[in-house]
This record gives sequence, C-alpha cells and structure tokens, in this order.
Amino acid sequence: MGSLEVERKTTGWAAKDPSGILSPYTYTLRSTGPEDVFVKVTCCGICHTDIHQIKNDLGMSNYPMVPGHEVVGEVVEVGSGVTKFTAGDVVGVGCIVGCCGNCRPCKSDIEQYCNKKIWSYNDVYTDGKPTQGGFAGAMVVNQKFVVKIPDGMAAEQAAPLLCAGVTVYSPLNHFGLKTSGLRGGILGLGGVGHMGVKIAKAMGHHVTVFHPLVPYLSLLKVDGKLILMGVINTPLEFITPVVMLGRKSITGSFVGSIKETEEMLQFCKEKDLTSTIEVVKMDYINTAFERLEKNDVRYRFVVDVAGSELDH
Amino acid sequence: MGSLEVERKTTGWAAKDPSGILSPYTYTLRSTGPEDVFVKVTCCGICHTDIHQIKNDLGMSNYPMVPGHEVVGEVVEVGSGVTKFTAGDVVGVGCIVGCCGNCRPCKSDIEQYCNKKIWSYNDVYTDGKPTQGGFAGAMVVNQKFVVKIPDGMAAEQAAPLLCAGVTVYSPLNHFGLKTSGLRGGILGLGGVGHMGVKIAKAMGHHVTVFHPLVPYLSLLKVDGKLILMGVINTPLEFITPVVMLGRKSITGSFVGSIKETEEMLQFCKEKDLTSTIEVVKMDYINTAFERLEKNDVRYRFVVDVAGSELDH
Repeated sequence: MGSLEVERKTTGWAAKDPSGILSPYTYTLRSTGPEDVFVKVTCCGICHTDIHQIKNDLGMSNYPMVPGHEVVGEVVEVGSGVTKFTAGDVVGVGCIVGCCGNCRPCKSDIEQYCNKKIWSYNDVYTDGKPTQGGFAGAMVVNQKFVVKIPDGMAAEQAAPLLCAGVTVYSPLNHFGLKTSGLRGGILGLGGVGHMGVKIAKAMGHHVTVFHPLVPYLSLLKVDGKLILMGVINTPLEFITPVVMLGRKSITGSFVGSIKETEEMLQFCKEKDLTSTIEVVKMDYINTAFERLEKNDVRYRFVVDVAGSELDH
Repeated sequence: MGSLEVERKTTGWAAKDPSGILSPYTYTLRSTGPEDVFVKVTCCGICHTDIHQIKNDLGMSNYPMVPGHEVVGEVVEVGSGVTKFTAGDVVGVGCIVGCCGNCRPCKSDIEQYCNKKIWSYNDVYTDGKPTQGGFAGAMVVNQKFVVKIPDGMAAEQAAPLLCAGVTVYSPLNHFGLKTSGLRGGILGLGGVGHMGVKIAKAMGHHVTVFHPLVPYLSLLKVDGKLILMGVINTPLEFITPVVMLGRKSITGSFVGSIKETEEMLQFCKEKDLTSTIEVVKMDYINTAFERLEKNDVRYRFVVDVAGSELDH
C-alpha cells in the first residue's frame, strides 16, 4: 500500500444535496497515522438514520456526504502504534470514530455518550476534514473504534450488528436485562427491532412485538423499563401517574460502546445468531433507500461494496 | 376503652360534595380487630392531594369524605395479635392502610405498588366500609400500616414526614442516591419539595430548586434521573433524543413503603431535621385548603386535631 505518509484517493457514493440521491464521489483519505487502521470496505448495512442524514431531516447535513456506519472490511495497512490489528484481519466500524478520551463517559467505557464524539460520517475529524462513511472503497479509522469480526462470521451478517445489533445489546446489558426468562416487548420490527427480537430471544427472554407506544406503557410491571433507541421527532407524551404508580422508567440508549460491540459480536457468534438481510449492489442503493422509507425490507439492506463497481 | 368487639363513634371533618367544603361528620369506627391499633389523632398534615380528592378532580371521589393521610396520634387500644405497639405509644399513619400481602411488591416490602392497596381515605376497606382519614378524633388501622414516631420528635413535626417526607426519601433510597455529594435539582418548593430540599441536604447533597420541567431535562448528566413524585394531569412531552443521547431516565416514585417510612423517621431524628409548618385548628381547615391552592403556605399546614373542637 505504500508509505503511511502518502494520501490516497477512494471512491464512495455520496449525497450531494438534500434530495438524498447518491452518486459516485472521489475524495482523499488521510494518511494512516500511528493509531490508524486502513480498511478496505467489504460491505456496509443501510440504517434508517442514513435517510435522515442524506435528506437533512435533522438540519445538520453537510454535502457531499458518503453515508454508511455498519461497515465490515479487511485491514490493509496499520499505523506504527496499532497493536490490536494486522493486515488481513476482518474488522468492523460502527457509528463513531472519535471521542475526547478524558470525560467521565470516555473513562467509563461508554464513549458513545461523550459530548465530543465524532460520527463516522457527516462530522469533522480532528484534522479538520469531513468524515465519510462506509459506502466507499476504503476508510481510515483510529484503532480504538475498530472491532474484530469473529472468525467464521460472514461479513454481510456482521454488518447489521455494528449499529442495529449493539443498539439493542447495549441497553439489555446496561439495564441488567441479560439474565434469561424475562418477558419483554419490542416496539417496531425494522432493522433494529428484528435484531432486538433475535438477541433477546438468544438471551432466553420471551419477546412480544407491538407498535403504538403510549397504551403499552400501562403493560409495564412495577420497576419496568421502556427503553427508547430511535430518534422520533414527534414528541411523546404521558401523564405522571402512569410512571409514578409503578415506579416505571422511560429511558433511552444510544447505540453502544466499543466494549459492548465486541461483547455483542462474541455473543452472536456463540449463539450462531444471524441477521435477516437483503444483499444489494451499490448501484441499487438509491432504490434501497426508497424501499427502506416504505419499510419494504425484511429487515436490513447490506451493500456488497467490494463486489460493486463504485465509479459509475 | 372497653371491649374490642364494641363499635365506637368518632367525629371528623368531611367533605360532603365536590365543593370540597369540610364540616363536622360523625361516623362509626370498626371494632379493633386482632391486628388493629386504635389511634387517637393528635395532629394531621394537609397535602395537596387532599384538595384533588375533596374536589373530585380525579373523578373517583365518594362522599362524605374525611381526608388526611399525614396522621400522628396516640395508641389507645391494641388488638390481641398486635406486638409492635402498646397503649401510650406515639405513632404515625400515612397514605395506605391495606395491601394484598401476596403479590411481588408486597413480598418485596414495596407494598405501595400493590394493585390492591387500600388508601387511608376515599377507599373501601376489607369489611366493605369506607376508609376515613386523619382529620378526625380517631382511626383504627392495621398494625402493618402504623409506624412508631421516634422519641423526642414533636407530633406536628412528624406529621408532614408521613407523606411528604417519605415521598422524597423513597426515591433517594431506591435509586441509590443516598451517598453524599451528589448535585440534584428539585422541581417545585411546596410541601413535598421543601422536604426534598431538607432531606437531600441532610444526606450531604448540593440541591438546586427550579420550576419549569422540559428545559431542565437537558441539564441531566449521562445516566441522570428525573424522578416524578406528583400527579400532573397535563401531559408531559419530550422527544426521544433528549433521553437517548445521555441514557437519561424519566421515572417516578409513589410515596414510600412502611419500611422506608421507619427508616426515614429515624434518619430525620438522627439529623435533627424538622419540617417547616404552620399549625392551625380544625375550624381553619377550609381556609387552609384555599391558601394551599394559592401556594400560600411555607410549607405545610398541620392541623392540631387533639387541640380542636371537632363537633362544630
């Protein structure tokens, strides 16, 4: 791959404006620094958040934007300080590629709650340049935000685990809900929801899927928890007796830490747990986004990046 | 006091209709059963919930209704199976006078979350008769729902602790917030709020009092908790990222258990903690309710029941 000091070009598929239509875009990756891993992308899952980002639904989008934060790839080159990975390793990258390292969340291995976290795309890296995601030939990522994919786990199976999988694993882990035999409900059966069903079932829980929120608050038992994991910009409302009288909690969880990602991958490997996916090529990605908006996918699209022509 | 089998009359002040005006009302107390304690009322605090009940704000009021659930009195007679109390003891009664004893909350000493709990007033007791509260000459209460007031604690000081005090103590206890040095906020400085400030300060916390809710959600740190303790019938609303991105919890707590009431009384005794009260006679109670509705009390009314004429 040449010297670590040489900057390299890659081609991804980027949104150029809030229409959200993706098309080829060539840009320069930073040199592989001492702590960096250069990853050739194999495949990348499509998350509903990608739609919010490419269409500027949150009012914070910058273009051109290469989305994608469920990235599986192969290590091609590592920096001089990288100890966790060597060339040839199959690895994953999720939603976050940077954090401050000094705050309480960072020091408690919950760096996803760091106020200075850097998103995998549509953010600005420490070098002042835009971050770009996984619908591209390659990424350069600090080793702290790279996880090893367990041996024998298919790349396209691993991809949805890196956001959807850890998003459901993290609250089950944090809120003490891993011991089998619980009765839980999952609201919504999309990419995240279907992983919730699979992971919770693999933990030995009884799971019911339902859809409207508020009526189901009353189904929570004493000390029951409603854990929100998705961005809903319509306000949720409730009256206080609904939570007070059963000491119920409405809480939330935001993806998961690198540590939890590693644990979750190991858990999925041990349980032989697979995601339910539809693998597509890059030139299908705009159609995939359209179908995702209509919930027309069972349950996660994964783009076969390495097997696609990226230039046209 | 005569035979345990003899029924006795007492006079309280009751609301007769949703105007909520209280006036004398004479009724029959049940015989002191084997597990019962006959309590001559010394004084009783006025809680904002009393207003909701006497005015039928919750649509579940039955009349005549003698309110009052922060009751301090003296034990006059005990049933044959009563071991915790003897005549002459100074005792307290709070919001609840019955529970099923068999459900998970009951077996976990959090009987306030029992679905079959019986309220101190405006409820139906196991004998099919209405329960009546503490603005009365006497009450008969199952020993399980009676607590000893620590020696040396003034009756009128103890009264507000039996609802307001344990309402704030219970969540501090349950949610692991008793270790000193936390920085907390208390929303609202009424009867409950002022006890919250005092108890949290006595635990060694730094406390800030504030009023509007939603803007302050953003002040919670990662894993911070907003604990609701008051009935607010106007829906609260929030958008999911506000809780997700800091794994914040919106939860609630409903008064506290008998065990926690006992702990809290001991805590207040040890810390020499007093409530800030205005002691009034029974014939002032309607004025007191009017002033409470205007927040014109610093911070809790306590009715000197024993020192009042109850008959007119």
